[in-house]
Amino acid sequence: MASPSVSDAAEQPFFPDEPTGPIMRTEIPGPISKKAIAHLDKVFETRSLNMMVNYQNSFGNYIADLDGNVLLDVYAQIASIPVGYSNPSLLLAATSPDMASAIINRPALGNFPQHDWAEILETGILRVAPKGLGQVFTAQAGSDANELAYKAAFMWKRRQQRGGPDVEFTQEEITSAMDNKSPGAPNMSILSFKTGFHGRLFGSLSTTRSKPIHKLDIPAFDWPQASFPHLKYPLEEHAEENAREEQRCLDETEKILTTFHSPPAAIIVEPIQSEGGDNHATPAFFKGLRALTRKHDVLMIVDEVQTGVGATGKFWAHEHWNMEDPPDMVTFSKKAQTAGYYFGNPDLRPNKPYRQFNTWMGDPARALLFRAIINEIERLNLVQNTAETGDYLYTRLQALGEKYPGEIQNLRGKGQGTFIAWDSPRRDEVLKKAKTFGVNVGGSGERAVRLRPMLIFQKKHADIFVDAMEKVFQS
Amino acid sequence: MASPSVSDAAEQPFFPDEPTGPIMRTEIPGPISKKAIAHLDKVFETRSLNMMVNYQNSFGNYIADLDGNVLLDVYAQIASIPVGYSNPSLLLAATSPDMASAIINRPALGNFPQHDWAEILETGILRVAPKGLGQVFTAQAGSDANELAYKAAFMWKRRQQRGGPDVEFTQEEITSAMDNKSPGAPNMSILSFKTGFHGRLFGSLSTTRSKPIHKLDIPAFDWPQASFPHLKYPLEEHAEENAREEQRCLDETEKILTTFHSPPAAIIVEPIQSEGGDNHATPAFFKGLRALTRKHDVLMIVDEVQTGVGATGKFWAHEHWNMEDPPDMVTFSKKAQTAGYYFGNPDLRPNKPYRQFNTWMGDPARALLFRAIINEIERLNLVQNTAETGDYLYTRLQALGEKYPGEIQNLRGKGQGTFIAWDSPRRDEVLKKAKTFGVNVGGSGERAVRLRPMLIFQKKHADIFVDAMEKVFQS
Repeated sequence: MASPSVSDAAEQPFFPDEPTGPIMRTEIPGPISKKAIAHLDKVFETRSLNMMVNYQNSFGNYIADLDGNVLLDVYAQIASIPVGYSNPSLLLAATSPDMASAIINRPALGNFPQHDWAEILETGILRVAPKGLGQVFTAQAGSDANELAYKAAFMWKRRQQRGGPDVEFTQEEITSAMDNKSPGAPNMSILSFKTGFHGRLFGSLSTTRSKPIHKLDIPAFDWPQASFPHLKYPLEEHAEENAREEQRCLDETEKILTTFHSPPAAIIVEPIQSEGGDNHATPAFFKGLRALTRKHDVLMIVDEVQTGVGATGKFWAHEHWNMEDPPDMVTFSKKAQTAGYYFGNPDLRPNKPYRQFNTWMGDPARALLFRAIINEIERLNLVQNTAETGDYLYTRLQALGEKYPGEIQNLRGKGQGTFIAWDSPRRDEVLKKAKTFGVNVGGSGERAVRLRPMLIFQKKHADIFVDAMEKVFQS
Repeated sequence: MASPSVSDAAEQPFFPDEPTGPIMRTEIPGPISKKAIAHLDKVFETRSLNMMVNYQNSFGNYIADLDGNVLLDVYAQIASIPVGYSNPSLLLAATSPDMASAIINRPALGNFPQHDWAEILETGILRVAPKGLGQVFTAQAGSDANELAYKAAFMWKRRQQRGGPDVEFTQEEITSAMDNKSPGAPNMSILSFKTGFHGRLFGSLSTTRSKPIHKLDIPAFDWPQASFPHLKYPLEEHAEENAREEQRCLDETEKILTTFHSPPAAIIVEPIQSEGGDNHATPAFFKGLRALTRKHDVLMIVDEVQTGVGATGKFWAHEHWNMEDPPDMVTFSKKAQTAGYYFGNPDLRPNKPYRQFNTWMGDPARALLFRAIINEIERLNLVQNTAETGDYLYTRLQALGEKYPGEIQNLRGKGQGTFIAWDSPRRDEVLKKAKTFGVNVGGSGERAVRLRPMLIFQKKHADIFVDAMEKVFQS
């Protein structure tokens, strides 16, 4: 199915044993999958099921179902597979004695860290720490990474209000905290942005503003939301009005920071709003946020759960901003296959032990895996690959959009690696049809088709994808 | 150090290669550990560090540090190691091809479950499901397991108020939910108990009432707390006044259920308050709670994060209650090495997909490990072992307490396996000194010494432990 005339014929495949293209044998789900889904439904939620998968048969960019179908996967477990299914280098790490011990001897890292925990961090998670953020607090998923960052922000802000790390809690604070009341449990907030997504636990969900179905019936904190820029695409053709829109959102943010009844200790923002429909903003907007947070002495948390680990053609998406003054905290998960938040300011370590603490505090097994992922990214130069493949993919999609202007609207993500999306007037139908042409692709927001291929996605895969989309549009 | 004259000399060791007793070579931390801790401190929180550990050198009930010291471990990673360090059966599971694939091909289980997920659940997590609770929602840690259970409770209650699963959300609900306001984000609550612990994320922390240091500076929901019984020990000598105390707490609970301004959708309770000081209540109390929740139509969530998986001499601690009508949800983590909540009522499945959802929704690698743990528990009959060892240990501690009445107060946990604790007037000193005699033991609440040995703890280990405690008391 590839179009060698278009992509670079000399391109070396990262994984020679990867399938050369999709293989479609049955409709999806096929008969074997249908039976397995009915079985699973008896014990587990299946209404959100997209495809039943045989991972042992999945390799590289290709995902295999139970009926012999093999699809090019540009969704990658909701953007969380970094270097391909059944990656041989990861397999080596996963079968190492260190990994086995990490799996069966899981430590309570805050109390009983393993002898090589510092080394695992330094040769892994911390080796790719964002500029200026040399410390990490480890977690297990994006939601709790964000919540831990919020807790760090609240403790930092209250410490500041209290007058420093050595000022003791008052008896009133101690008593009221146990009663879930102010001042011990302070009336403070995290400011987030409309259509943003930061997780689905109670604190993170209070900052998530993506879709009602995520929030309905769940009690939430009375925390504020500011407008996120609604930009016009392509960005370069609408620079002036986009700048006005961004200024409007910055003004709104400042107004909330100065007037909201429950004062924000921090703002949290995604470099690209990823669940909310792939909404972009320019570096100027993010620099403006940094300036506002400095001016009003609140923290800036950048949620790189979906954008981080190479997908935008930089290791961290916020590197695109070229910001002198780094964010205060950066959260990560998904492609890292572990989670946590990076920070730099030592004041973000709480003033006493056991304030930021839980039984496991992360997972050394997953930290070892992230280290192997980082090594693989470096070995194959995958951030660079993603930047280049992304440019190629964007150009091909731009051409396809010119041919099918009714199908591809507001194409976006230029210069952002393969983190590309467009609006589709019949999105859900497009996603469904793509499967019949051998492609697994996902959506975001109300009508965006979002591309989240792995970092091993090459030009030949881009060709297969674009050709399949054309068939979808023709059908 | 063992006292073969006291324990059953015929007792077969589960792991013949396990050390025969503690080996103390240096003070703790020794020189190598000190250096390693200073190194770790540069990149990770170490103020809560108890001991730096070499897990590859730790076997069975024994934990090894970096200086050649080997301690009998009755704390077990805050009650989370089930069947011993470096357990050979778990090692087999951890090095299986299924495990390797689960580690490197982590699925988004709600969208792309693996072909054998139903089987993994059925032969593992669900095989030990509490009576009446045949379904599971998987999670990653105790905190998020509890929060997911809370979300299920809120959705269930609102659905009931709305008039059933087919009644659609109103526009007002949809709009207000996005704004974190009622009715979409309802003014509802979870009732928890004083000195209870249910986790440290924002929702779970709002139900945690253990210690101020866990809660200070973190915004909390205005949710209610009822008194948990303060019983007198030994329970059998104070039956009448304990019954009055339990009734007082039940009355208080009922008052909150009927009058609190933010109506509870559920109560959550631990079978034994584990972080809060090992506070017990009788089956009558829990049956009373079940009756109240039925009467007032709220759910009963039992938090078995610390009590579950065999430690009390039953697989689930709530089995001790012999309750006809099971709890609505039971949460688990720690010794399961994975997490989630069990439920039975199909109405606790939300009425639409994507309401209870997140990227990973648990972890098949950890589910495979739990299955291996369950198999090991069955192979060695470890729940029975824990019941028997617990009785033996309790009897020996009772005798020790008679000899040292100033050291062992309110001994508790009789008939609850090895889930035993006592109050100590110089608790932190006792915990520290225990290390010099080769025992790693933890505390809970303000002054309790809590025993949380693994399920492979045998009478010979109990002897070593009791003898070491006597040396501590003598010193």
